[in-house]
Amino acid sequence: MINHRIVLASRPAAEAAVENFRLEAVELPALQDGQVLVRHHFLSLDPYMRMRMNEVKSYAAPQALGAVMVGGTVGEVVQSRHAGYGPGDPVVGMGGWQEFAVVDAGQPGALRKVDASRVPLSAYLGAVGMPGVTAWVGLNHIIDAKAGETLVVDAASGAVGSVVGQLAKARGCTVVGLAGGVDKCAYVVDELGFDACIDYKAHRDFTSLAAALDSAAPGGIDGNFENVGGLILDVVLSRMNAFGRVALCGMISGYETGPMTIHNARLLLTQRLKLQGFIVSDHMALWPQALAELGGLVASGKLKYRETMAQGIASAPEAFLGLLKGRNFGKQLVKLT
Amino acid sequence: MINHRIVLASRPAAEAAVENFRLEAVELPALQDGQVLVRHHFLSLDPYMRMRMNEVKSYAAPQALGAVMVGGTVGEVVQSRHAGYGPGDPVVGMGGWQEFAVVDAGQPGALRKVDASRVPLSAYLGAVGMPGVTAWVGLNHIIDAKAGETLVVDAASGAVGSVVGQLAKARGCTVVGLAGGVDKCAYVVDELGFDACIDYKAHRDFTSLAAALDSAAPGGIDGNFENVGGLILDVVLSRMNAFGRVALCGMISGYETGPMTIHNARLLLTQRLKLQGFIVSDHMALWPQALAELGGLVASGKLKYRETMAQGIASAPEAFLGLLKGRNFGKQLVKLT
Repeated sequence: MINHRIVLASRPAAEAAVENFRLEAVELPALQDGQVLVRHHFLSLDPYMRMRMNEVKSYAAPQALGAVMVGGTVGEVVQSRHAGYGPGDPVVGMGGWQEFAVVDAGQPGALRKVDASRVPLSAYLGAVGMPGVTAWVGLNHIIDAKAGETLVVDAASGAVGSVVGQLAKARGCTVVGLAGGVDKCAYVVDELGFDACIDYKAHRDFTSLAAALDSAAPGGIDGNFENVGGLILDVVLSRMNAFGRVALCGMISGYETGPMTIHNARLLLTQRLKLQGFIVSDHMALWPQALAELGGLVASGKLKYRETMAQGIASAPEAFLGLLKGRNFGKQLVKLT
Repeated sequence: MINHRIVLASRPAAEAAVENFRLEAVELPALQDGQVLVRHHFLSLDPYMRMRMNEVKSYAAPQALGAVMVGGTVGEVVQSRHAGYGPGDPVVGMGGWQEFAVVDAGQPGALRKVDASRVPLSAYLGAVGMPGVTAWVGLNHIIDAKAGETLVVDAASGAVGSVVGQLAKARGCTVVGLAGGVDKCAYVVDELGFDACIDYKAHRDFTSLAAALDSAAPGGIDGNFENVGGLILDVVLSRMNAFGRVALCGMISGYETGPMTIHNARLLLTQRLKLQGFIVSDHMALWPQALAELGGLVASGKLKYRETMAQGIASAPEAFLGLLKGRNFGKQLVKLT
């Protein structure tokens, strides 16, 4: 059986491009004892993958050249030589950018069976998966948001930001989102229920963005779930109240540029702010509780999400480059069946 | 009776200068009920006072023009119309830059009797006072330093840094100090017991300072007690291990310059660092425990400190400007008797 897959062909000098990826067709090997063959239904595309393409020190080893691009996947077991899995089982894993994966199913964390009856399979890559747990951990364990506080969330229509805002609203916070464009902002307010959303593309300098934020959050900001960095972070920091907390989850605005700078670091001192970087995989002990909660909210319709779907493994590179430019709307997935 | 005092005459445009201060001689008023008259023996000079001289939003209101400069003081009661105090009582307060203070003794936090038999009176402005508690809170509650970890402390021979390092050593940490000049560095290692001390004046650029730090802390840095900011903070951040913590206590290198910048903020994310600004007066509930511990350590000779003593109230402005330039060696005090 032929497996189509995308490997990293070369490292980007600055902006990633389709030339950095290569589509390959390879014969699937026969299963060994303890292995299962998974057919992927959906592949998750996430900003962290851009950092892996560089050869720099980060929290994870860089993606090896010539190897299949890493990535979360959901699919179904088609063959099994592991007693815990049988054909048809819906599973979540880190199968990478390919149509099939041969998985050592006994390896901890390699594969997880999921309930596809209550929650759509694709949601296990979004609101009930890594992005949702990221939102949950940052809000509960870094920001520790309390009722009555004002939160700012950027990339607010995205897979992580949309969950942050909805969880915070359910807790009684005032939530201001930032997103790119009027359509995304309308969705963030009208569908997701944020109190306000600022179109950052309409505010390209400090003064303009600060004025928009002052208007949306006149009492200042207590918590910030930060996915973007750069100008947005500088402006948000300048509007933080004493004892504010920043959960630093991503800095996508700088993944393809030089070092990211915080220009007004003295505010961290004078306002006694806490700024903490975190990675959801450092908090594995929290996943079961988070996933149970998020699964319940999605199943009951209380947690909404949106997906942008690319079709076929060959479309993954373009879809990924679009994600880095904010061309997706909600969770970016690749449908493989 | 005549009281000599220093008031803020004008706000500095950039660097503070003696012209910003004015010495005044005024008649002391008669005591009202509930008041005590304190004769100051020592006045504390501290970096935070520089921030108060500016008219900018900070954690404390700016120092009013024409008012006595704020500052911690120790002295003895000379007259009392409050039942809790009698002549001769040694007391700590916030009497400001003056020889005498009339204090409403019933006001919470205005005055505190101390034991001058176990601990020298001046130490209540240093190791057993605000600077010592600052060190204690930052080390215990922000950095949460553990045995075996490597800590970096700048302004290491100063009132705060010297306590941070000694407490951390007692806990089993490896401690690297930074200080200005060979004499201070020798004191930090030989007298205070730090494992190493880097003379930052001999390392004026990123590469040079980074090499010195790599040599002193080859396994990287787990905790940073930050008093200086600027280049030092950038270099320290670049050498932090995963899950490192920065207690941001001061940024004295930038108090007289423009905004302070963190140039490599992405490290906060990739290394999952926590950077937290704090002010010791936000943690009043911790003071009794901290002071008891610090007082015991000073009384038993286990916690060492050094003082630089200016003589007479008229010397306070020059001594303060010297402190901002690092000309002091240890705690900067003004002796008023």
